[in-house]
Order: sequence, then C-alpha cells, then structure tokens
Amino acid sequence: MQKAIIIGASGYTGAELARILTLHPAFQLNGLYVSAQSQDAHKAISDIYPQLKQIVDLPLQPLDENLTALAQQNDLVFLATAHEVSHDLAPIFLQNQCKVFDLSGAFRVNNAEFYPQYYGFEHRYPELLEKAVYGLAEWNDSAIAQTDLVAVAGCYPTVSQLSLKPLIENNLLDLNQLPIINAVSGVSGAGRKASLTNSFCEVSLNAYGVFNHRHQPEIATHLGTEVIFTPHLGNFKRGILATITAKLKDGVGEQQIREAYQQYYAHRPLVRIYEQGLPSIKAVEFTPYCDIGFAVKNGYIIIVGAEDNLLKGAAAQAVQCANIRYGFAETLGLI
Amino acid sequence: MQKAIIIGASGYTGAELARILTLHPAFQLNGLYVSAQSQDAHKAISDIYPQLKQIVDLPLQPLDENLTALAQQNDLVFLATAHEVSHDLAPIFLQNQCKVFDLSGAFRVNNAEFYPQYYGFEHRYPELLEKAVYGLAEWNDSAIAQTDLVAVAGCYPTVSQLSLKPLIENNLLDLNQLPIINAVSGVSGAGRKASLTNSFCEVSLNAYGVFNHRHQPEIATHLGTEVIFTPHLGNFKRGILATITAKLKDGVGEQQIREAYQQYYAHRPLVRIYEQGLPSIKAVEFTPYCDIGFAVKNGYIIIVGAEDNLLKGAAAQAVQCANIRYGFAETLGLI
Amino acid sequence: MQKAIIIGASGYTGAELARILTLHPAFQLNGLYVSAQSQDAHKAISDIYPQLKQIVDLPLQPLDENLTALAQQNDLVFLATAHEVSHDLAPIFLQNQCKVFDLSGAFRVNNAEFYPQYYGFEHRYPELLEKAVYGLAEWNDSAIAQTDLVAVAGCYPTVSQLSLKPLIENNLLDLNQLPIINAVSGVSGAGRKASLTNSFCEVSLNAYGVFNHRHQPEIATHLGTEVIFTPHLGNFKRGILATITAKLKDGVGEQQIREAYQQYYAHRPLVRIYEQGLPSIKAVEFTPYCDIGFAVKNGYIIIVGAEDNLLKGAAAQAVQCANIRYGFAETLGLI
Amino acid sequence: MQKAIIIGASGYTGAELARILTLHPAFQLNGLYVSAQSQDAHKAISDIYPQLKQIVDLPLQPLDENLTALAQQNDLVFLATAHEVSHDLAPIFLQNQCKVFDLSGAFRVNNAEFYPQYYGFEHRYPELLEKAVYGLAEWNDSAIAQTDLVAVAGCYPTVSQLSLKPLIENNLLDLNQLPIINAVSGVSGAGRKASLTNSFCEVSLNAYGVFNHRHQPEIATHLGTEVIFTPHLGNFKRGILATITAKLKDGVGEQQIREAYQQYYAHRPLVRIYEQGLPSIKAVEFTPYCDIGFAVKNGYIIIVGAEDNLLKGAAAQAVQCANIRYGFAETLGLI
Repeated sequence: MQKAIIIGASGYTGAELARILTLHPAFQLNGLYVSAQSQDAHKAISDIYPQLKQIVDLPLQPLDENLTALAQQNDLVFLATAHEVSHDLAPIFLQNQCKVFDLSGAFRVNNAEFYPQYYGFEHRYPELLEKAVYGLAEWNDSAIAQTDLVAVAGCYPTVSQLSLKPLIENNLLDLNQLPIINAVSGVSGAGRKASLTNSFCEVSLNAYGVFNHRHQPEIATHLGTEVIFTPHLGNFKRGILATITAKLKDGVGEQQIREAYQQYYAHRPLVRIYEQGLPSIKAVEFTPYCDIGFAVKNGYIIIVGAEDNLLKGAAAQAVQCANIRYGFAETLGLI
Repeated sequence: MQKAIIIGASGYTGAELARILTLHPAFQLNGLYVSAQSQDAHKAISDIYPQLKQIVDLPLQPLDENLTALAQQNDLVFLATAHEVSHDLAPIFLQNQCKVFDLSGAFRVNNAEFYPQYYGFEHRYPELLEKAVYGLAEWNDSAIAQTDLVAVAGCYPTVSQLSLKPLIENNLLDLNQLPIINAVSGVSGAGRKASLTNSFCEVSLNAYGVFNHRHQPEIATHLGTEVIFTPHLGNFKRGILATITAKLKDGVGEQQIREAYQQYYAHRPLVRIYEQGLPSIKAVEFTPYCDIGFAVKNGYIIIVGAEDNLLKGAAAQAVQCANIRYGFAETLGLI
Repeated sequence: MQKAIIIGASGYTGAELARILTLHPAFQLNGLYVSAQSQDAHKAISDIYPQLKQIVDLPLQPLDENLTALAQQNDLVFLATAHEVSHDLAPIFLQNQCKVFDLSGAFRVNNAEFYPQYYGFEHRYPELLEKAVYGLAEWNDSAIAQTDLVAVAGCYPTVSQLSLKPLIENNLLDLNQLPIINAVSGVSGAGRKASLTNSFCEVSLNAYGVFNHRHQPEIATHLGTEVIFTPHLGNFKRGILATITAKLKDGVGEQQIREAYQQYYAHRPLVRIYEQGLPSIKAVEFTPYCDIGFAVKNGYIIIVGAEDNLLKGAAAQAVQCANIRYGFAETLGLI
Repeated sequence: MQKAIIIGASGYTGAELARILTLHPAFQLNGLYVSAQSQDAHKAISDIYPQLKQIVDLPLQPLDENLTALAQQNDLVFLATAHEVSHDLAPIFLQNQCKVFDLSGAFRVNNAEFYPQYYGFEHRYPELLEKAVYGLAEWNDSAIAQTDLVAVAGCYPTVSQLSLKPLIENNLLDLNQLPIINAVSGVSGAGRKASLTNSFCEVSLNAYGVFNHRHQPEIATHLGTEVIFTPHLGNFKRGILATITAKLKDGVGEQQIREAYQQYYAHRPLVRIYEQGLPSIKAVEFTPYCDIGFAVKNGYIIIVGAEDNLLKGAAAQAVQCANIRYGFAETLGLI
C-alpha cells in the first residue's frame, strides 16, 4: 500500500479525494491536512461532510512547519490547495521523494508570464514548470507514468480537450474559425466558501469570465490552437456540460470523426463516446466518466461533452493519474 | 402622495419593498438607504438587483447622522434593517412624526426579557414595546389604523398564526396537546449575505433552530398558547410552507372549522382559504397572499399554510399595514 | 375596453396571458377557452393554477362549433394553441373582424415548405402567410400597428434576434463566420403536459434539437442570415439565456456596437441594454424584459441575452403587440 | 456467486439495484426484466440510464410466459414491480425455490383487508402474507435470515420506524399523544413515468396523501402504535427527510434516548446516530445510510431522520436483506 495524504482536504475536491482514497485498494489514506489557519482544523472531515460519517472520519490536521517530515513519511500527496499554496508546497514534497499530484493551476502551463496575469503571483519554479506533466490522463499517460509532479488538468479544460483533441490531432477541423466552447458548470466549481455570488439566492444561470477566464489559455496551450471559451454558472451543484461548435475541414464527415474518437478512446475506460444521442449532466454526476457525443451538418460539428467537475474534472482524474503513475489499472478505486 | 423611504434597502426584503412602493399609487418612494458602512452604498439598487433596472434605479444612500432631517422630510419609513438597528432608529423617526413600519423583530414582543435571550441585546424602549402594534394585518387592523409604530409580523409567525388563530379564537382546538408547526422556508429568509450555510452547494433540506428559534415565542405570545415550532431550510429561493397538526376538541368537525376561517377571512382579500386541496409553494411565490387548506380525521386537523416569505411574510404585509394605517384598500399596490 | 379572449388558456403561456389581461387597463378579458377534448374543460383556471385564485377565476370553456359567434363577440383573440390548431382557427377569427395574436408557429415563416418539414402539416393559407406580420415587437411595430394577424415571435427567436439584429442591420458582423447561438431554456418552454422528458427526475442540463430545431429557420429567415442555433434544456422553470458568439468586421469596436444597440433600443422600454456586466436568468424571470449585455475582444463579440420565455418570449410580447396594434403605450399592463 | 435477477429493472429503484448488483462481490446479476408491454423492452438499461454506460449494459428483457424456467435458473429475484405484479409473481418464484426480495407493498402488511383499501386489489395469498418477513433490516434480521420472502420496507416507513422504534421498544414515549411524522420526499419516490404532477414545472413543495397515505398503516402496523403521518413532495430528486415530534414519558431525558439508539444501532453500520446536529438530505443522498439526530426539551422530542429513498428506502435495503439472508456482511456491496 502506498501512503497518500491530502492537503486542502476540507474543500469539495478534497472531500471527494478522501472518499476515493479511503476505499482505494492500493493507496492508504494516511492523513488529511488543512491550512493551520483554517477554521476547520482539528475537526473530523465527517463533521463538515456528514455524508462521509463512518466512511472517513479522519481529523483535518493543521499543516505545521515540519513539512519535510510529512513528505518523508508518505509516498504521494494530493494538493487540493489554492494555486499559490500548491506552488509553495510542491517543491518541498518533491525534494523529499514524495510524488505530487497537484489539483491547482500552479504547474499546468509552462509559461512563467501566465501566472502573474491569470493567477496573480510570480512563479518561482520554472524548472518545475518544465518538469511537470500535464495530467490529462487519456493523453499524457506515458509521461505521467514517469513523472513525480503531475499538474492535474482543470475541470473545464478536461472536458474541452477530451472533446476536441482527437479531431485536432487527426487534422479534421478548419481552425481558421476558432472552436467555440460554451460550458456550464455547477456551483461546486467555485469551491467551498462563503460568497455572495455563490449564495443560494444569487445563483441562476449566467456567463462569467468572458474572454478572460484562466482556463482559456490552459486549453489553448495544451490543444495547440486558440479557442473561444465562455464559462457559465448554472443552478446545480456538480457537473459541467460543454457545447462546442467547430468548422470541419472540407469533406470531413461523421465517419472520420467517429473513427478519430475510437482511435483515441476505444481502450480508455473513463471516456464514453456516444453512438447516438448527447450526454447530459445527469449522465455523469457522481461518476468518474467524461461523456462525449456529437452531431454533424453542413460542414460544422457540435460536440457535447459532460463530466462531474469534482471527479473527472478533479479528484477522480487525480487518482487516475496516480494509478497510471504506479502502474495500476487507471480505473482502480474509481468505479 | 405620502413620502416613504426604505432603510435597509439592499436586502431581499428591501428590494421587494422598493419594487412595491415604486409602483404604488399612493406612496411615493422618496429614498433608499443603507448603513453607511455597507459596501453597496452609493450603488443604484438596480446594480445589485438587475431585475429592477428601469423600474427603480434609485441610489442606495448611506445613512448619515442627520436622521432628524430625514425623518422630518418623510411621512413614513420602512425599516428593513437588523433587529438592533431598528431598535435604535425607530424612536428617532417616531419623535419626528414619521410613521414607522418595522420589519425586524425589535418591537414584536412586549416582554423586555425576550430580547436579550433571543436577539442578544437589551431593549431600551419599553414604552415603545407597549405602544407598538403587532403587524399581523388581518387580525390587528383597527389598532394598526391608529398607531405610528407597526412591528410587522415575522415570516413564519404570519403563516402560522393566520392558520391557527381562527381555530383558537373559536375555541375549536384541544390545546392540551400542543399544536405542532413544521415549516420549510426558502433560503431568502436568511437574508442577502455571504455565508457558508446558505451557499448553493450546502443547502439541501434540514431542520434548524429546533426548540429554540426566536419565532417560537413570537408565535406563542401572539397566539396566546404554546406551540412546538420546527423550522426547516429548503432548496428553493422563496416561500414558506407550514404543515400544522393539532388536536380538535371533541365533536369539532370540518364544518365548524370552515366556518371559523370564513368568519375571519371571508372579507380579507390576502388570505385565500382552499375549499379543496392544499396549498403549495408555487401557489404563493411572487404573490402577496397567504393560502390555507386543511384536512380533518379522527379528531385531528392538519392545516397547510403557504406564503411568499418576502411578500406576505415581509414586504407585502408591511405595505398592507401601511395601507391600513392610511385608510387605503389593504391590497392597494399589491395585486 | 377592447374585448379579448384567450384560446388555449390552460397552458403556461395561456395562464400568463390570463393574468396580464385581467389586470390590463384597456383590454377586458372576456373568456378563456380550451379544446373541447381537454380534461381541463369547465374547470376554473385557478383550479389548475392556484396562484391565480381571486385574480382570475374564469372557467376554461370548451371551444364549441360556433366559432363565428365567438369571433363576432370579441375584438381580439390570443391563440395560445398548438401550431396546427392556430392554423385552423386564425382564418375564422379574421373573417369575422376579430384581430388575431397567434403565439404558435403557424404564421411566422412565409414559406409554405417550412411547415411540413418543421411542423408536420401542410399550410393551407398562403395568403395569410403573406399577410401576417411577424410579432418581434421592437422591430416590426409599424407593420404590427396595421395588421389584423400578428404571428408573435417564438421564445428563442425573440432573444436571439433582439441580440443580433442591431449589429446585422448596422453591418457590424463578419457573417462569413456564422453566428453561434447557444441557448438554455427553462422547462416551461416545453408546455404543460405529462412527459417523461420533462419529468422532474429526468431534467438536468442537455442540448437537444441540435442542427434541426424549428427555431433555427425562424431566426435565420427573419435575420436574413444563417446562424448555428443550439438549444438546451436546463433545470429551472422559466427563462432563456442565450450566449451568442460572432465575428466582428475589421475595425468594429465596442463603441460602434453600443451605439447600434442605443440606436434601436434607446426608446424601447422592454429591452434593457447593460452598460456593464451580463444578464442572468434571475434578472428577467417574471419580468417582460429582454436584457442584453456583451463583451468584445480580438475581433469577436460575445452577446448574452436573457428573457422570461413565458413573458417577453410569449405572453408579454403578445400583449405588447396588441398594445401597439391599438395605439397604446407598448408597456401598458406589463410593468 | 448467487444468481440474481431484477424484474422491473427500468424504474429508478430497478436501476439502482442493477448498479449495486453489478458491483456486488457475491451476487451475480443474471438478467434484467421488464413487463412484456414495456416500451423499454429490449433496450439496454444504459440506453435509458446513461450514467450506467459501461457499468451495466444488459438488455431489459421482456418477461415471457416461462416464469418457471426463469425461477429455476436463478437463486434470488428482486421484484421492483408494481404492487399487483409483485403479488402475482412472488408465488411462482417461491414455488421454484427462488428467493424473493419484493420492493413493492404486496406483502408488507399481514392483513388482507389492507390491500383492497390502500392498493386497490384483493390479496389472494394469505399464506404468503403470513410467511413474508418485513424487510426492515435492522429490526428483523434473524427472521430475514431464514425466510424466502422478504417484503422490503417502504421508503417512508423505513426512516420513520428506524427513528421511532428504539424509543417505543424501550417504552420512552407517551403514546397518548400520537407521534407526528412530517416527511418530505424527493420526486423519484413517485417512480419513473410521465405524469403532470411530477413534471418539472409542477413540482414545488406540497403535502399530499394527508391522513390517507398507504404508508401510514404500514408504519402503524409494524410500530404497533398509531401515528399521524404527513408526506410531502419536495423539489429535489432523491432523499427523504422525516421530522418526528413525540411526547416523552415523564422523566425521560436525553441520556436514556441516546442509550436506546445505541442499544439497537451501535453495531448496525447502516444507521448513523448523530451525537450532535441533525441530518439533512445532502448527508444521505447517494448513500445506503439512514441518519438520525434528535433534540429534547420540555418533555418533547424532535427526531430528524434522513435516507436516500432509492437506497436505504428501497434498493440498498433490499440488498442488505439479501446479504443477511445469505449470511454475508450486511453492508457487502453497499459502501
């Protein structure tokens, strides 16, 4: 059993990780940690997530200064922390031979200028940016299998890229017209915190971050092409539905598209390609899958991708990456 | 036209008041005010409530120190403020001949011991507690018509008392068994603020304030009998549904109950008694009505009452009281 | 007072019409009608819509065969009926000098081939297709003022066209790239009926009618340009949010766009253009407004439009058209 | 591996059973069946429940006439069928040595008069009513372990009885005052079908079946005491919250109550007793637990119980009973 800990375990993603790792047959959940300032410190995780009672009742330990010891006592750490916290913590764990699966945005884009603009801090570890492997599990598995630092892909970028990459790799899209990604996320994507924006009465359905959401450059960087990405907040707790419109190259038809998806995903159990129909949020909530369907007409394609933002968009994909890193079946502990 | 202002206009109840008073044919909305410390000060109300754009775009003015002048320039004030703020403001307005319609709990219960226990402050105006009229419009209209200080009834107490009072007044209930009030409120009842409890992902359906909610003594005081009151928070924005179980006196049947409701409400346009069926939240949301239905069997009655907590449970009832105070039709500006 | 009736009054749009017309100062609601086969026939409308109790309690009369008399006794009729029913009824009312405001799709597109393909019936009244005025109120008011047959615009087409037309009319868009309209509608758009698709547990968020929804040709016809229109069903009751992505012509900037919106809507009270921010569903639900906001970057524009599908997308716009037809203020009875 | 089949697999409970049994380590899911008339016959279950894609893709086979063979080929059957269908099918399976876990109401109450009144059919198998064991797992496990016919408890009755039985068994309640059970269920409790009542726009929050719901006599029979049971339909998909008010015997305090719950549930892993706080729907949705919390004051107790109606209220409890019958850990395959 590999010893795993979670830092930032009090958030929605942290709680999903805690549940998954508790039930995982090959990782042993060895501790839950939160910032020393957290008002949840010392509580049992099941005090703030009653659904976890009797499943995982571990305490949320405050992170103290002896991070080195913590790193040395464990094999892998999941960082479900704020971007800047991950940025600071990851090097300490790596130096002590503890593998890092970072769910923040701190190491996803190998471009130091990206961080001040989109995350508001200077990146001080360009060598780690160089070394980090982007944790889009279905696409980078051989690199993931060899790295000690996985920058797990963001929620919107996961579903967007899984939907688009087979077509781009196989050169089926006319990229002179930018792919248009309209996505709607459940409110859990904003994290567990008091905010007026996410209070129950304020949520309805609205676009946000138009033309300037930090996931746009993450998507564009790893796709290798520009896109227009418009996120929305919807009145549901979990899940992302992405509706993507793109122009096909002349002569490209449904058959080639279906073959492209098959080529990349036929043997990837956590991506489900629809033979007919389109996915909905209910098809993926509480599951580790990314579902993809599409329709074609008059030279255009509309792709609909769906995932649970906390699972395939975060916790489940992090564990999927860890499974790959350790040579386990990628679905181990996830289905 | 009577000049009216709203203090505490940035909250959900304040916004409903602003809408109602803007469209009201006999009150002129003369200003919206918020605490000087409010981060909404100086914004237009329609900046924080976009649904009000072009309906009411008045600025949210910070309350400054010259409250006397404000009182003297207006005929009536609606206090949609925190309990302790209402407690402090009401005397100033009353001294300057400005009628006060207070939507807080500051003057609802004529018992000075109630306030430290349930609201956490000492009440310094016992003479105003004596003088205030409890604004349960259908029951206290002749007193409301003559007072300058109306303590508008709370949201849960309104629907609970409107449902029970006809039966209690007509001596139809066996009060040796306490009436059991189970009520579910939408989240707007908690006000417009950032809180983890009311954040979208945290809300589901749960009881709270069990055996110790401040509306229990408000109900018991004005009903003149004890009750067991169990409030719940539900996953909807507005509305309260109260399900009330009580024991009937021997021999009391449906006919006497229906007559009691008719006796008190036949000419009260904002209480709708169901001849068959029971009310639901959708029947009352966005309306100024309190709907009541009931069923009888084996010596017990189950009454279901419903209202929009922000309207009949707050803003609409406050304006109904003001209508009564000025001798207007009680529904003026409400339907 | 003009005498108005509603046929198809038991549906969600019919109920909204009933409420509006009851409170309207210049139209007298003279009767509610449903199909003779309807199981709601003879019920009071407030029996099926309890929120209307005491506001409108008229019976839902079964349509009998004497339509001529019905037409002769009234000045105007609102058809909230199925497309084919409207197609059959409109001529009868028109022949008897009763003005027709049809909320179905039966007369919206002047192209007889459209009906078999998208609505499944042959259109037998080409002369009425020729004569009908498309009821997009802000754009066709002078024609509406002179016609006896208004084909009120559909819900998605209203918000889509109000958002796009000022830019297209002013030649600001590069239409070589098709505008992409992604819209999400509340479930009331599907009408009041038992269906598995719209049952509570089945609804989440999903795209439907991809590449083949009947509102696509309606939009394209009246805009005069092709678009890609992808509707979605969301887990809310009312409202439509449309997110539209389009390419701007070279050199077109925010200023020209804002001026275009101002040019067409500065004096149109039911379209609200946002100076900053973007509309959400909550800004428009239960209101007669269409709200529009936009953002511009790198030669692209993203427009977000919102409306209540039952009001500006149906009942309120129908009454707005009737107001225009009779020379009343277009907002009469609507705000 | 025991061979298990599900009849009525297309409903919400059937789908949960299919998921659980597919992943269960000791039962082998050997077939899914629906009525021969079902429009879902021959579809894959994952065609109607896309969340099950790749987890269970078995076809929904139409039940043909050779039920004897079906019974002989399997060890146990889960009947997620309509009450009258279960009534007809159970004897056939029992005669062929196939154990029956019936999730309908057909065998829950050993009183033949109950069925015509509450279910609308005459019960023709009084000897099976005599023999059936009521599947309230925590209370009847020794009988369940020896029977071939388990009448799995209903959804409301499960949470109601688990909450009340320890107090009644230990004689802590003053039953001269009837316990009042107010419960709110998610819409999935009504099953998967098209109905106007359960269509998305019609659901809000309302009481139903007041004084005459069929679960009232089920609860009263198995508790051995009358109760007042008022069910409500809430605007959520799954879960039941029951708020129960009861009078305590003189002198009974929190300590005795807590001990009673401990006595019966300390070693029952699927009932979670709260040491503080009260359960909510979110604590139990998608889990096999029943959560119970309580508060005491002035001689009254308010108990709040919560469960997922489809799991502890149906499918999970059915499998829990099957686990008990076969001598497995009762949580096998459930956590």
